[in-house]
Amino acid sequence: MTESAFLAACRGEAASHTPVWIMRQAGRYLPEYRKLRQGTDFLTFTKTPDLAAEVTLQPVRRFELDAAILFSDIMTPVEGMGVELEFEGGPVIRNPIRDVESAQRLRIPDPLESVPFVLETIRSVRTELEGSVPLIGFAGAPFTLLCYLVEGHGTRTFSTARAFMYAEPDAARLLMTKLADTMALYLKAQAEAGAQALMLFDSWVGLLAGSEFEELAAPAVARVFDQLRDLSVPLIYFPNQGGHLLQQVKRLGSDVVGIDWRTPLSEARLKLGPDVTLQGNLDPAALFAPRDRLAERIDGVLRDASGEAASDAGDAVHTPGRHIFNLGHGIDKATDPDSVAFLVDTVHERTAR
Amino acid sequence: MTESAFLAACRGEAASHTPVWIMRQAGRYLPEYRKLRQGTDFLTFTKTPDLAAEVTLQPVRRFELDAAILFSDIMTPVEGMGVELEFEGGPVIRNPIRDVESAQRLRIPDPLESVPFVLETIRSVRTELEGSVPLIGFAGAPFTLLCYLVEGHGTRTFSTARAFMYAEPDAARLLMTKLADTMALYLKAQAEAGAQALMLFDSWVGLLAGSEFEELAAPAVARVFDQLRDLSVPLIYFPNQGGHLLQQVKRLGSDVVGIDWRTPLSEARLKLGPDVTLQGNLDPAALFAPRDRLAERIDGVLRDASGEAASDAGDAVHTPGRHIFNLGHGIDKATDPDSVAFLVDTVHERTAR
Repeated sequence: MTESAFLAACRGEAASHTPVWIMRQAGRYLPEYRKLRQGTDFLTFTKTPDLAAEVTLQPVRRFELDAAILFSDIMTPVEGMGVELEFEGGPVIRNPIRDVESAQRLRIPDPLESVPFVLETIRSVRTELEGSVPLIGFAGAPFTLLCYLVEGHGTRTFSTARAFMYAEPDAARLLMTKLADTMALYLKAQAEAGAQALMLFDSWVGLLAGSEFEELAAPAVARVFDQLRDLSVPLIYFPNQGGHLLQQVKRLGSDVVGIDWRTPLSEARLKLGPDVTLQGNLDPAALFAPRDRLAERIDGVLRDASGEAASDAGDAVHTPGRHIFNLGHGIDKATDPDSVAFLVDTVHERTAR
Repeated sequence: MTESAFLAACRGEAASHTPVWIMRQAGRYLPEYRKLRQGTDFLTFTKTPDLAAEVTLQPVRRFELDAAILFSDIMTPVEGMGVELEFEGGPVIRNPIRDVESAQRLRIPDPLESVPFVLETIRSVRTELEGSVPLIGFAGAPFTLLCYLVEGHGTRTFSTARAFMYAEPDAARLLMTKLADTMALYLKAQAEAGAQALMLFDSWVGLLAGSEFEELAAPAVARVFDQLRDLSVPLIYFPNQGGHLLQQVKRLGSDVVGIDWRTPLSEARLKLGPDVTLQGNLDPAALFAPRDRLAERIDGVLRDASGEAASDAGDAVHTPGRHIFNLGHGIDKATDPDSVAFLVDTVHERTAR
């Protein structure tokens, strides 16, 4: 295959342009996705390799994206642990974890038995891609999964899960360890099936103050990454809304850190140092702006990533090549696909070297 | 009245101890609140001065709190603007604002006509308090109100509201200006009725990147405060999850800035400078911890507020008296009231001068 701009950027090597992909790029904003999803419930969809592979490929066919990302859900691998999972708009857990005993009962499943359909999806996507762009595999980070497993469903504040963390520290630690080991096996299996980069989504870690991140969430993330380092596959960590945690995130040693749209990339760079690639961070809502304003915002992200914006203030860290363009969060389902095409083309035009 | 520790702290003057109050202290975690609320819907409740005053006073009777805060809702004053408001678990807007025309139709009502019940509640509470502790009045900040008015209901991401902000900048600015002027009149009327400090809750401002805060939200907050400065009543701004916005918040010139639990007070101090009082910022979930762990966390907040923690790193700003203890967000409804008593007493014991 042609050298991938995405993989080069993950390793901090020079590439022909700044690579771009989009969180939730395989999703409801695409008419071809909505058509394929019609009449099939979400869980069945993620468990059917033909469908999951097709949806993974849809955005790569439509746009000049520099990477594909597996279509799946962060909750997929927890069913094999003994969690009773359903989807009703979002994940619903019939047997939420609220004490040490429930955490003890959870298994650490073999991915070959618990999620063969994910591995088959990956193999099928790799075959179809024929090396055109690399495929990213992913999992949910332990704290984010804990939020759902304890709360039982999505909320704005996960207050039951956070109360549990303070009230039942032993159960919380045990649960985090089991989640870390399950996700490590799951991601390893994804890499062995063909995933060329592995991303850990910590969607709710921004709910934690630094002290709780340090005590509970960070050790579990480190435990996942430590089991993956030998694979020589780039590791990406996305601590959503975790701008206040970046000094601690640096120590976790991922190759790439995803940055949400509220933390300027130049500030993230100062906290994370020069040896990490930043991924992000256009506000997904900016895709609703008129073209000229959207172009301004894209340029703003590129400038901020290059260190040019910060250099005016005298404290720039110049790191050419250490940037993967992305949104600062998943794309909204009401987004116009034409705005995505404009985004991808603009990033490529502006950064062609 | 005895000199209030709360008002002294707002002005940066020496007080006998660090004052403490709790966001949402009049609420569902109190059995006496749940009893009084039984059978009365939320809107009726907020509009009945006898009930609203009683609920405002309940926590002050039960705990040694240093301030009372008006029981009301941030959505209360928008009904008078022409917004069709209902409560179904949270606020629901029957006629969401999605274009310039809808924004133009909104009125800027006279609080004496639109919210006489709020002003009567304030007068009644002041009489009952007999000067024991001061009463805080409050309103929602314009951006947070825009989120509800455009989205039509609460969500996790307010993606419709944020898309609107990019797609319809003129309508967004007009809406923000009208909300700012309405809230300024509303808060002024509260002060004239007897509120002794005025707080602006910007619950959703953390959704904004710095550039959008600067363009849209900050000018509207400044517009509110500019109309209140002559009242000589302390002004409090709570930019929830706005740790990344604090350098800009500094320029808004409030006397007190509320800090959520994710931003260390020592870091907030570095960004806000010595001339502002910090309010916060214990994680509300810490109230679910066993007593010894809760005490540790309380001490951690006090230490961080005093500048002691940062002084180890050599960049402390020592500002005795410039701290009002609070949670970093509203108290959870499942909280044990005994934990609140422990919190209030611990803060008082540790800081008695």
